[in-house]
Amino acid sequence: MTPFPFAAIVGQDEMKTAMVLTAIDPKIGGVLVFGDRGTGKSTAVRALAALLPPIRAVAGCPCNSATPEDCPDWAQVTDTSMVDRPTPVVDLPLGVSEDRVTGALDIERALTRGEKAFEAGLLARANRGYLYIDEVNLLEDHIVDLLLDVAQSGENVVEREGLSIRHPARFVLVGSGNPEEGELRPQLLDRFGLSVEVKSPNDIDTRIEVIRRRDAYENDHATFMDQWQPEDAALRDRILTARAALPELKTSNVVLHDVASVCLALGSDGLRGELTLLRAARALAAYEGAPDVTRDHIRAAAPMALRHRLRRDPLDDAGSTARVARQLAEVLP
Amino acid sequence: MTPFPFAAIVGQDEMKTAMVLTAIDPKIGGVLVFGDRGTGKSTAVRALAALLPPIRAVAGCPCNSATPEDCPDWAQVTDTSMVDRPTPVVDLPLGVSEDRVTGALDIERALTRGEKAFEAGLLARANRGYLYIDEVNLLEDHIVDLLLDVAQSGENVVEREGLSIRHPARFVLVGSGNPEEGELRPQLLDRFGLSVEVKSPNDIDTRIEVIRRRDAYENDHATFMDQWQPEDAALRDRILTARAALPELKTSNVVLHDVASVCLALGSDGLRGELTLLRAARALAAYEGAPDVTRDHIRAAAPMALRHRLRRDPLDDAGSTARVARQLAEVLP
Amino acid sequence: MTPFPFAAIVGQDEMKTAMVLTAIDPKIGGVLVFGDRGTGKSTAVRALAALLPPIRAVAGCPCNSATPEDCPDWAQVTDTSMVDRPTPVVDLPLGVSEDRVTGALDIERALTRGEKAFEAGLLARANRGYLYIDEVNLLEDHIVDLLLDVAQSGENVVEREGLSIRHPARFVLVGSGNPEEGELRPQLLDRFGLSVEVKSPNDIDTRIEVIRRRDAYENDHATFMDQWQPEDAALRDRILTARAALPELKTSNVVLHDVASVCLALGSDGLRGELTLLRAARALAAYEGAPDVTRDHIRAAAPMALRHRLRRDPLDDAGSTARVARQLAEVLP
Amino acid sequence: MTPFPFAAIVGQDEMKTAMVLTAIDPKIGGVLVFGDRGTGKSTAVRALAALLPPIRAVAGCPCNSATPEDCPDWAQVTDTSMVDRPTPVVDLPLGVSEDRVTGALDIERALTRGEKAFEAGLLARANRGYLYIDEVNLLEDHIVDLLLDVAQSGENVVEREGLSIRHPARFVLVGSGNPEEGELRPQLLDRFGLSVEVKSPNDIDTRIEVIRRRDAYENDHATFMDQWQPEDAALRDRILTARAALPELKTSNVVLHDVASVCLALGSDGLRGELTLLRAARALAAYEGAPDVTRDHIRAAAPMALRHRLRRDPLDDAGSTARVARQLAEVLP
Amino acid sequence: MTPFPFAAIVGQDEMKTAMVLTAIDPKIGGVLVFGDRGTGKSTAVRALAALLPPIRAVAGCPCNSATPEDCPDWAQVTDTSMVDRPTPVVDLPLGVSEDRVTGALDIERALTRGEKAFEAGLLARANRGYLYIDEVNLLEDHIVDLLLDVAQSGENVVEREGLSIRHPARFVLVGSGNPEEGELRPQLLDRFGLSVEVKSPNDIDTRIEVIRRRDAYENDHATFMDQWQPEDAALRDRILTARAALPELKTSNVVLHDVASVCLALGSDGLRGELTLLRAARALAAYEGAPDVTRDHIRAAAPMALRHRLRRDPLDDAGSTARVARQLAEVLP
Amino acid sequence: MTPFPFAAIVGQDEMKTAMVLTAIDPKIGGVLVFGDRGTGKSTAVRALAALLPPIRAVAGCPCNSATPEDCPDWAQVTDTSMVDRPTPVVDLPLGVSEDRVTGALDIERALTRGEKAFEAGLLARANRGYLYIDEVNLLEDHIVDLLLDVAQSGENVVEREGLSIRHPARFVLVGSGNPEEGELRPQLLDRFGLSVEVKSPNDIDTRIEVIRRRDAYENDHATFMDQWQPEDAALRDRILTARAALPELKTSNVVLHDVASVCLALGSDGLRGELTLLRAARALAAYEGAPDVTRDHIRAAAPMALRHRLRRDPLDDAGSTARVARQLAEVLP
Repeated sequence: MTPFPFAAIVGQDEMKTAMVLTAIDPKIGGVLVFGDRGTGKSTAVRALAALLPPIRAVAGCPCNSATPEDCPDWAQVTDTSMVDRPTPVVDLPLGVSEDRVTGALDIERALTRGEKAFEAGLLARANRGYLYIDEVNLLEDHIVDLLLDVAQSGENVVEREGLSIRHPARFVLVGSGNPEEGELRPQLLDRFGLSVEVKSPNDIDTRIEVIRRRDAYENDHATFMDQWQPEDAALRDRILTARAALPELKTSNVVLHDVASVCLALGSDGLRGELTLLRAARALAAYEGAPDVTRDHIRAAAPMALRHRLRRDPLDDAGSTARVARQLAEVLP
Repeated sequence: MTPFPFAAIVGQDEMKTAMVLTAIDPKIGGVLVFGDRGTGKSTAVRALAALLPPIRAVAGCPCNSATPEDCPDWAQVTDTSMVDRPTPVVDLPLGVSEDRVTGALDIERALTRGEKAFEAGLLARANRGYLYIDEVNLLEDHIVDLLLDVAQSGENVVEREGLSIRHPARFVLVGSGNPEEGELRPQLLDRFGLSVEVKSPNDIDTRIEVIRRRDAYENDHATFMDQWQPEDAALRDRILTARAALPELKTSNVVLHDVASVCLALGSDGLRGELTLLRAARALAAYEGAPDVTRDHIRAAAPMALRHRLRRDPLDDAGSTARVARQLAEVLP
Repeated sequence: MTPFPFAAIVGQDEMKTAMVLTAIDPKIGGVLVFGDRGTGKSTAVRALAALLPPIRAVAGCPCNSATPEDCPDWAQVTDTSMVDRPTPVVDLPLGVSEDRVTGALDIERALTRGEKAFEAGLLARANRGYLYIDEVNLLEDHIVDLLLDVAQSGENVVEREGLSIRHPARFVLVGSGNPEEGELRPQLLDRFGLSVEVKSPNDIDTRIEVIRRRDAYENDHATFMDQWQPEDAALRDRILTARAALPELKTSNVVLHDVASVCLALGSDGLRGELTLLRAARALAAYEGAPDVTRDHIRAAAPMALRHRLRRDPLDDAGSTARVARQLAEVLP
Repeated sequence: MTPFPFAAIVGQDEMKTAMVLTAIDPKIGGVLVFGDRGTGKSTAVRALAALLPPIRAVAGCPCNSATPEDCPDWAQVTDTSMVDRPTPVVDLPLGVSEDRVTGALDIERALTRGEKAFEAGLLARANRGYLYIDEVNLLEDHIVDLLLDVAQSGENVVEREGLSIRHPARFVLVGSGNPEEGELRPQLLDRFGLSVEVKSPNDIDTRIEVIRRRDAYENDHATFMDQWQPEDAALRDRILTARAALPELKTSNVVLHDVASVCLALGSDGLRGELTLLRAARALAAYEGAPDVTRDHIRAAAPMALRHRLRRDPLDDAGSTARVARQLAEVLP
Repeated sequence: MTPFPFAAIVGQDEMKTAMVLTAIDPKIGGVLVFGDRGTGKSTAVRALAALLPPIRAVAGCPCNSATPEDCPDWAQVTDTSMVDRPTPVVDLPLGVSEDRVTGALDIERALTRGEKAFEAGLLARANRGYLYIDEVNLLEDHIVDLLLDVAQSGENVVEREGLSIRHPARFVLVGSGNPEEGELRPQLLDRFGLSVEVKSPNDIDTRIEVIRRRDAYENDHATFMDQWQPEDAALRDRILTARAALPELKTSNVVLHDVASVCLALGSDGLRGELTLLRAARALAAYEGAPDVTRDHIRAAAPMALRHRLRRDPLDDAGSTARVARQLAEVLP
Repeated sequence: MTPFPFAAIVGQDEMKTAMVLTAIDPKIGGVLVFGDRGTGKSTAVRALAALLPPIRAVAGCPCNSATPEDCPDWAQVTDTSMVDRPTPVVDLPLGVSEDRVTGALDIERALTRGEKAFEAGLLARANRGYLYIDEVNLLEDHIVDLLLDVAQSGENVVEREGLSIRHPARFVLVGSGNPEEGELRPQLLDRFGLSVEVKSPNDIDTRIEVIRRRDAYENDHATFMDQWQPEDAALRDRILTARAALPELKTSNVVLHDVASVCLALGSDGLRGELTLLRAARALAAYEGAPDVTRDHIRAAAPMALRHRLRRDPLDDAGSTARVARQLAEVLP
């Protein structure tokens, strides 16, 4: 069944914006979505990917390479015809093994033909798309670590069982988490680009609207999809325009000063906060068609870029969102 | 021995209704049965399946496909003749391995013939039927998770050992649990469609009736089965009629408003509560032959659809059933 | 060495009666023997089996089938001549693997001949006999669970390693346990048919008699066996007569009412208590040559059938045997 | 190097007596030696075995069978010539695997020749001799259990990996333990026949004598061995005479009454205590050349036979040896 | 993408000095970098390696040998042409197996061709370069131990699976650690040569400068690299000059006395502290072009060489850096 | 690089004496070295072995046999020429597997050629030399146990995987331990022959001397080795003379009495203390060229032989060294 239209998702604006920003500049890094279950996190990822234009890929390539030259040697691609494929969305099942994520020695061929061949994993399949992890806090740390490493470097390097394999693995990592179920180590949090919070809507009209749309989507699928197609198409065009505008955007010294001031005021460790905030603000400016990044873009992007990088402050029991807002008000009035 | 007649089950009306509803609309999702041991949970599932008409399936297909075209390629089905089979009921033994559930590489063929063949698992066998788990709270979380995923998507996707296999796996999951033995995570609870509570009967005449029927079933089997056959047949017809009526049922805005109001009042997280309640009420309306869904249907279905989705409220020590009843009385008077 | 004569066991009447009842009606289910070590539990099982007439079985059949037609297909039985075998008694060693219990893929044949053959396990060998577990509370839960499942259904179903095998496995499970060493989950307790308690004798003459018989058994074996042969033979005849009488026994409504009243008064969960009590009382009536089941039979069988099904009652520190006796006195005066 | 002469062991009379008794009647069961390290437990076992006459065994038989007919079929013994072998003493290393103890499938032959052959284990090699376990309380329970089972039945039954093998395994189990390092379960204790306590000698002349003999044994081996040979030979003759006399010994009713009285007074569970005490007293009578068992023999054997079977008594803080002595004084004055 | 220029790293002088010293004298041993995340530790290692001149190595040699004669026999190097390679930097992934670190039997060749061949690991690849471990405190102790052993001896010795292999493995180990996440055993700490502490900069201009350079590096790569090339080249020349000067440096008795006095005053266990301090001071003198080692060099190198070797002193809550400084002030005024 | 000269080790006299004694009489058993890290324990073992004359061994023998006749059969030695080899020093790496220590089935040959061959382990290689374990308290107990067993018996017996292999394994075990890191069980302690304590030197001149020698050893190797050669040669001669004198030394009754008195006064369990003390005193007498063992030798050897055998005494908080000294002063004034 065609995924739910992105535009038809009711509310959850921050989550939608964060996802759109990573569609404009995937270098922003992954998105961590905190919040209640049943709020459509997985739906949103699939919807966004379905909204984006298909990717043009080599038919026989395990990592969706854009040209035959990009296919890794080990893949011995024979079918080099070009095909259009939907932007891939790969689901990472709980309990997945490292082998399956990174790829591994093809045991069957080793046993039966005595050949040492590589069998690509989920990272290859996610190349040029999205990798979605439900309940990222339940995944083993070393897998999260590995995913964040690859997401950042854009390359999967496999060193094991006598294999030394590499292939491009450029994808946006989207993880959902329920803070009540177990925390991520600060080291891991820090390596997600953005974080957003989602909640079940509290007012009844919104909830009715959600049910109505979902019901229509399931019981009257074709009509429903037709109805939302124009909005999704407009959004796609806007994203593509922003992607094109991104390299031309200017960043003034004032903006750099704003970025550093906010991060310093919030006491975020290291410098990933600054760099992400700068990138997110730039993507936002591009999305809004602005000619250059302004303090408003910084202000808008800061909660998403910094909320998960605060040190815990035992004397301040405000939530992180509130703390970011307070500092923003002081530092960038 | 032919299973016990569904109609001859004494009492336990809520459990029987919930099972009938899922027979009318399997998309309602699984049923979680809480309660005392020895109350005939396993008997009821087998009885319901035995009551339903046989399914017509391709003889050689591991997942009971309805037409040769539906058989998955990997199965290399050669015997495409059609046969009638009882609605399958698959028991999930405690300690079952993930392999056996999802299917796995056929190691024997890999070792002896060097072929990478898929060996279907319990999910394939359960297609178009029921999957029963006794003491679901003793099963490992990741297996429960996997079962709920497949039950919801209707498809089993296996990505491992170099296999990339998919096949339809549309079944109703029925799990029994004893809350004294260990809890399910809220995330898992939320993904069961309905929940019911069963108890041993407290009055002596009911108990005598239970023993009498059971004794007759075992010691005078043929007579007993003949005696109950008409009631079971009537029930089957009613279910089939309801299945046919389901797509035509209308759902008014008032009904949608009722659904959302109840869920909001109960503070159930996310939106799975709303959608399930809507579906269960619709199936109930169909079962009762009503032309459209009414507030009465909502009221009747709400305890089954919502009881397991309440947040724990430390200030309210009423049981979940009582809390649902109280809110229903207030919100839908 | 020929097993000890059943009739020569000194005292322990409740244990002996329980075992005899299951020899009359194996559907009563397993017997759980609680109590001191060194009280001859294992001796009693072997003695009972040795007392029973040999079974007539197909020579080449791994599960002692009574006719060549009953042999499972997978066994590929070639020697179909009939032989007499002692009633089997299978010991379940501590630490036994599930494989060995249920049977498993014959790895050797798989590796060396590329054939997927089934190698029958202890359950096949126990068919038509007894399966004895010393210190059942030290066995892993999932093995106990599996044994009780099979004991109840009379069939062993193996779903693993690509095998889908079934064979009859009708046996009486006898487990010994020391309550000081670890408890069984209530779910498991409930699935044993009867339970008895044994103790070392406290009076010196009984103890001397035990030693004397044991010493004679070991040091003057032939004489000792000859001396007890007539009593054992008489007991065997009585059991066989009772087996034949069992289907003809009548059960009045009053008896059903008694059964339900006792169980309700004792608050035993579920309905396994009622059904077992009914069966045990019937077997006892048959053993005593009575024409129908009476309240006396209920009274006599109730402690064995219900003692292990009581809920723990923190306000009542009487042992379970005392509580059963008290309720019996009240309910069936 | 020839083992230390049994007769040259200084002191430790109870340990030496217990070992001699099991050499006269191996059915007494194992000996458990509690006490300080470095007190020559292992030396004593080896010394006793070296003292006994060699056994005459089939050269090619893995379990030292006395005649070619006794060799198990699976062993496919081809060299049936008879040879003299020292009484075997098998050491059970800590951390030994069950495979190695019981024997197992010969993996090499299975892999390379596709044959399912049995490879005998330590139990086969210990047949007709001694099995010594240092620090039995550090061995895994299931191994101890298995050893005691086999020691008692005299037969090793292997049911695994598709093998169904049995062979005689009649040996005396000698275990050493340090009560400070971890306790044996009462169930295991109960299954050792005798127990003794050893201590480092406290008076200096004894210690000097021990060092002197040990030093002579190591530095002047031949002379030392010659010096003790006559005493060892005398002891051997006495053991052989006692073995022959054993079946003729009479046991009066008074003796049986004494045995039961002592065990009852000590509250030892079950009846293994009585039977072992009877056997040990008989072996002692035979060793002393007495015509029948007397109360003196009971008195002398009781500490060894019963000390490890007492229930812990929280109100009596005397050690077990003292408690046995006290009861003996009262019951058999 | 070319690594970030070493000279363009803002601040973090102690870390940079420590790394430079190990480039001058790799025998100083590894560097342990404590501190906040996101402070560019991994960037610095890569930058330093990129700064150093390429190494000239045998093309086919798995351990980058400088001459064909140095290639280990087992490698059976056939391509002995010489190539220039960048100084290797090997990343040790979390969760890496010992096999992969040390190299291991090539299972594939063993299985398919029956040859026992060695497959080199990460240690071989790191020869003549750097081995970087992120979050060394999360690595298993035995791997850290192994790395430190090899780093110290300069040789990797593999004794397993019937292999007996050795090859040169001279590299500098750089580990990063966050003291909040788990401590290293004192034994391991002691075996790192130097330790440094890094912090996120606190003043805004520094932070802006960091972002600006990073942004320029990513968005205007070529210009940025050109701009910093001269500084990097100057640094390289200085390191090479220092390497050449090192063997000629004189060490007076006064300097030896200073070294011993400081270590004694600080109570550092053992003598690794003295030897490392002496080496580090010598390398520093060489780096500064001094003709001999002076007290100033000792003073400058002491914090890096000794900070991680202090015993914990419960009465002194100053940090280790402060304690080293205080003792230096007293002992070497 | 040639090992450090034994004679050039500064201080640590007790450790050096203990090592020399075991070089004179390896039957004394292993040496356990307690103390600070970085005090040259590993250096000392290597230095001692390098000091000793080379051993003459069969070239192709895996256990350095002195004559072709001594080579074990299983080794199938073909090259029986004699070669000179340095006294072997084998390092036991942390985490070593039992297989690698004892030797094991050669899996490769089993798999590829179907032959069951033994692959010798570290114990074979250590024969006639030293086995060094750094941080023996971190090794698994069962490995320590195994090493001590073999060290004591001088023979390695392997019973596993269908192999039954033995070979000589006479070596001195040297273990280092840090009492702060975990204790050895008293049982293991008791089986080491000697124990010594080492400390970092406290006075500055000693420390400077250590650094100076170490620095000279590394930076001016040839000169340094030449300088110390004469002292090492003298020591070697003295050891060889003592070895020859050992069998002729007389031990008076007074000496035996002294040995027993000291051990009794110290309450050391068992008799290993006496025997070791006697041996160590004899070796010391031989080293000193004395014609017979005297009380002075007992006094000098007692701390090394007994310190690790004391029972913990909660009322006496003096260290073990002090307690040994006190008792010596009293018992042997």
